[in-house]
Amino acid sequence: MSAPVSFFDAVNARQQALNTLLCVGLDPDVSKIPLRYHSTARPILSFCRDVVDATHDLVATFKPQFAHFAAADALDDLKEIIAYCRELGVPVILDAKRGDVGSTSEFYAQEAFDVYGADAVTVNPYLGGDSLEPFLERADKGVILLCRTSNPGGSDLQNLKLASGEELFEHVAQLAATQWNTRGNVGLVVGATRPAELKRVREIAGPMTCLLPGIGAQGGDVAASLEAGRGGGLIISSSRAVLYPDSDDAGAVRAAANATRDLINRYRG
Amino acid sequence: MSAPVSFFDAVNARQQALNTLLCVGLDPDVSKIPLRYHSTARPILSFCRDVVDATHDLVATFKPQFAHFAAADALDDLKEIIAYCRELGVPVILDAKRGDVGSTSEFYAQEAFDVYGADAVTVNPYLGGDSLEPFLERADKGVILLCRTSNPGGSDLQNLKLASGEELFEHVAQLAATQWNTRGNVGLVVGATRPAELKRVREIAGPMTCLLPGIGAQGGDVAASLEAGRGGGLIISSSRAVLYPDSDDAGAVRAAANATRDLINRYRG
Repeated sequence: MSAPVSFFDAVNARQQALNTLLCVGLDPDVSKIPLRYHSTARPILSFCRDVVDATHDLVATFKPQFAHFAAADALDDLKEIIAYCRELGVPVILDAKRGDVGSTSEFYAQEAFDVYGADAVTVNPYLGGDSLEPFLERADKGVILLCRTSNPGGSDLQNLKLASGEELFEHVAQLAATQWNTRGNVGLVVGATRPAELKRVREIAGPMTCLLPGIGAQGGDVAASLEAGRGGGLIISSSRAVLYPDSDDAGAVRAAANATRDLINRYRG
Repeated sequence: MSAPVSFFDAVNARQQALNTLLCVGLDPDVSKIPLRYHSTARPILSFCRDVVDATHDLVATFKPQFAHFAAADALDDLKEIIAYCRELGVPVILDAKRGDVGSTSEFYAQEAFDVYGADAVTVNPYLGGDSLEPFLERADKGVILLCRTSNPGGSDLQNLKLASGEELFEHVAQLAATQWNTRGNVGLVVGATRPAELKRVREIAGPMTCLLPGIGAQGGDVAASLEAGRGGGLIISSSRAVLYPDSDDAGAVRAAANATRDLINRYRG
């Protein structure tokens, strides 16, 4: 009997085997998906399955985003697409940004890992260590904490200067790397739009894996992010730029994913 | 034609009409609900309907907690119980602690207000102002931001001292009361376990309504909270102490809610 493979080990093995750091974010938006899906019984599921079919050998992980399914009242589609990714051997990050007091976080951990079957989940650290514990104690699962998010308004709190001299996101990285990562299953979200902060996170948190959303539609800088993130794990996520390329051709999604994977690899050196 | 009544106006009117600040949190936990529900077709829905029937004239608002339904894969029950509360004229706070970058927060706002039909939602401020805007622009809805949560670990981030001399939760209260509340639809979560912080929030945010979870099972202090919260809106929430009284008698839930309402009113003076 071997121990279950942890999320970060599984991602790392796949990144090496397939030579890719790319994560495709599954953010289905019925106002953007090609018209041909609108006549199917389950447009969101059909669209996501086609995206997964077209890109799974180019990615280390998929990242379905909860709200996009919830707003369309399509959580059954979310459940099925996660199961489908896992059948294909691809680890899944449920991007849900959960977080609540401990007794309730236990239910959120069950939601992510048991109801939806995700391998990892994004979690908001604002409620502190005891709110994270129900996620963290699932040692084979990945717990990816928001540190410096990709949006401009992220600076409102995350870049606040503390009396200690740190900025808030630096303190989160510090807590994550020390107090919270006792089981080795913690990662950090740092926007691909924020290479300066990624460099600081790398200095503080060492080789801890960072999930970088925001390349493509949000304008994240691939070259600067790869340079800043050297020395540790990286999962580089693109959603809209891969899902909604300018062309509706069946091959356009794969072409966009392939180009993004290659772009990342070019700067990886 | 009259404008739609805003969430906080509706709560305030009901608080005055029924002489109650009580909010009952709907946190259904199948391991705790009385055995007689286990043989029903939908135990969670049946239990929650009975709680609502037994307490609706004692409360100003109900607060269903998303994770408790999600972990049981019972989101249809969540939808139905929210509709049922609203049929009875009781405004509903969906306690979901959402928050994401702006383009995704738009989908979370749709989830809370359109898919589930809630009148208000709890939101995590860690991602900053642009992440809140899709919620805030729904002016008739309530947006209740986490400020100082009821759990001990809340201090990990929320009580950090900033270079400005404020603690982080004070800065959140300040932003909420100024930059973020341009439409008058913002409230703040301050745990009933944290009267000293509630006093500071009242000084900073003036009469802004504060939602106080944590009385009952979490040990929140009713007398100290009411004293600290004077001068503005209060919504005082109890979940486990009302839902799971020591007795399984049909009347026990109403008795617990009634006693809590009366306890609050005694200290309200």
